[in-house]
Amino acid sequence: MGAVTARDLARHLGVSQSMVSRAFSPGASVAPAMRARILRAAEELGYRPNVIASALSRRRSSLVGIVMAELTNPFYPAVLEQLNAALREAGFQSLLITIPPGGSADDALPMLRQYHVDAVVLTSASLSSASASHWLGDGRAAVLFNRTAIGPTRLDSVACDNVGGGRMAAEALLAHGCRNPAFVAGRADTSTSHDRERGFRAALAGHGLTPLRIEAGDFSYEAGHRAARALGGADGVFFANDILALGGLDALRHEMGRRVPDEVAVIGFDDIPMGAWPAYRLTTLRQPVPEMIDRTIGLLRARLGGDDAPPRAERLPASLLRRGSL
Amino acid sequence: MGAVTARDLARHLGVSQSMVSRAFSPGASVAPAMRARILRAAEELGYRPNVIASALSRRRSSLVGIVMAELTNPFYPAVLEQLNAALREAGFQSLLITIPPGGSADDALPMLRQYHVDAVVLTSASLSSASASHWLGDGRAAVLFNRTAIGPTRLDSVACDNVGGGRMAAEALLAHGCRNPAFVAGRADTSTSHDRERGFRAALAGHGLTPLRIEAGDFSYEAGHRAARALGGADGVFFANDILALGGLDALRHEMGRRVPDEVAVIGFDDIPMGAWPAYRLTTLRQPVPEMIDRTIGLLRARLGGDDAPPRAERLPASLLRRGSL
Repeated sequence: MGAVTARDLARHLGVSQSMVSRAFSPGASVAPAMRARILRAAEELGYRPNVIASALSRRRSSLVGIVMAELTNPFYPAVLEQLNAALREAGFQSLLITIPPGGSADDALPMLRQYHVDAVVLTSASLSSASASHWLGDGRAAVLFNRTAIGPTRLDSVACDNVGGGRMAAEALLAHGCRNPAFVAGRADTSTSHDRERGFRAALAGHGLTPLRIEAGDFSYEAGHRAARALGGADGVFFANDILALGGLDALRHEMGRRVPDEVAVIGFDDIPMGAWPAYRLTTLRQPVPEMIDRTIGLLRARLGGDDAPPRAERLPASLLRRGSL
Repeated sequence: MGAVTARDLARHLGVSQSMVSRAFSPGASVAPAMRARILRAAEELGYRPNVIASALSRRRSSLVGIVMAELTNPFYPAVLEQLNAALREAGFQSLLITIPPGGSADDALPMLRQYHVDAVVLTSASLSSASASHWLGDGRAAVLFNRTAIGPTRLDSVACDNVGGGRMAAEALLAHGCRNPAFVAGRADTSTSHDRERGFRAALAGHGLTPLRIEAGDFSYEAGHRAARALGGADGVFFANDILALGGLDALRHEMGRRVPDEVAVIGFDDIPMGAWPAYRLTTLRQPVPEMIDRTIGLLRARLGGDDAPPRAERLPASLLRRGSL
């Protein structure tokens, strides 16, 4: 018997040949259950569309590289799980690259090019302008997720409105009666920490207040715990993200014996699962992750489909999630 | 100018041609800094070894598929970060596939075959015997991580000695003076929960005790929280893993007003970061993750190198990590 063809497979399943072809084409419209059924039958009958050979000629592999640096911040595993599911649904396969915290994605890109990866989603990872320009050649795509580009760039980005969220944090502390607010900054080289601080400061300045500023240096529980010791007489603290705030809450309550929120109110940013635990009950700014992922996939599809409009910066609003810490 | 060759690149860098070739060969011995330098220069000069074309002829892509189902259990992001770094160090690239909790890896394998993935590491994911046999054809490799095969299999596995760990949990509770112990089981279809329970029961039976058994049904904070409400008069509880234990601790302390460890002692399994937080101070059985990853990579290399010895089951001992809950 000769090799099984797409036509054999279509006949076997009683579907059209174009349906079979779509099942093997990333991004093509086909119901997930139908795609699964066709892939299963292809496996049973030994049909091989040989996507790699086809990638060689088309320079399209249907692989999306995800570059991540902070898997130990619980925000990212949650994003990763949802992003993977959404990419799979859209007919892509994801190739995850982790880089050390603070590392640059520049070193990962040559490897991704070797595999003819079409598109990358960069989360918590930086990328130089030179690498970005080089990457975007030959119709490749790149989207910054939960990051905005610093400086001029050709990269699309999808993020929460961090400036607006910072403003909301300030307003919530002011409404609570805080007159002596503090900000705990995360990693210095991240747009998220910068933007949240900017909105926070601007809203406080409108009331003639300037926050005490503490540099945690990192986005981790331990860094938040250390930072809290420098809070002095602050009566309200905005931590640049939730994992910092959880470390800060533990230091305030267990080491320094401060009552939260009566003596000091605490607010974070992200909405990670641990913030809801009764030991914390953290008030936070929730990021709209499902909507952010939808926009990311929309951008990938448009760019891979040839859309060469100027870079887009999608900004989605944060929302205040009230629990017990403010 | 013609295409840049490996020889041009070697001359440019002042290294041997075989060094260049090793830098592009997964698993080949070359210092990470040297590999990075060669990849960077290849990118600058436009040298393309075209690993995909070469994968087509050799049927080797240097991709390792990681199949994971439980990213929201904080044990797995920590494993994933370390496993990715170790694979990268060994010259592999990882392709992460997430499947729904309780899902089977069977559906992911046809897709991985399309990409000529050489090897898979299966964590928190099941795989049928038929799929396993089919996968292992043509020299492919598969390793179960933190799982043991149920039933006859040709799959290698690397896991903690869960039976021995369960025994240690029982002994720690007995030494604390518990006479009324309980076990909270996780997902029913996992070897980890089964094996931990088996060791726990065996050690208690040696003292004429039978634990109260509560079925949490899942490995999650919420499931542990619910399960704790059924503990009745138990004076010591072994939770099948840490994330269950954290939910249980919060229910015991915050909802039921029980003093831990005086009225009820609690022990978990895994050693996730949150267990060390002062709100929890969870006593647990630590899994030796770095050693488990070393063994996994050793097995992958051996199998891809043609080792066809019978399946190996590597078992590494857990160790008791004492904090405040027992």
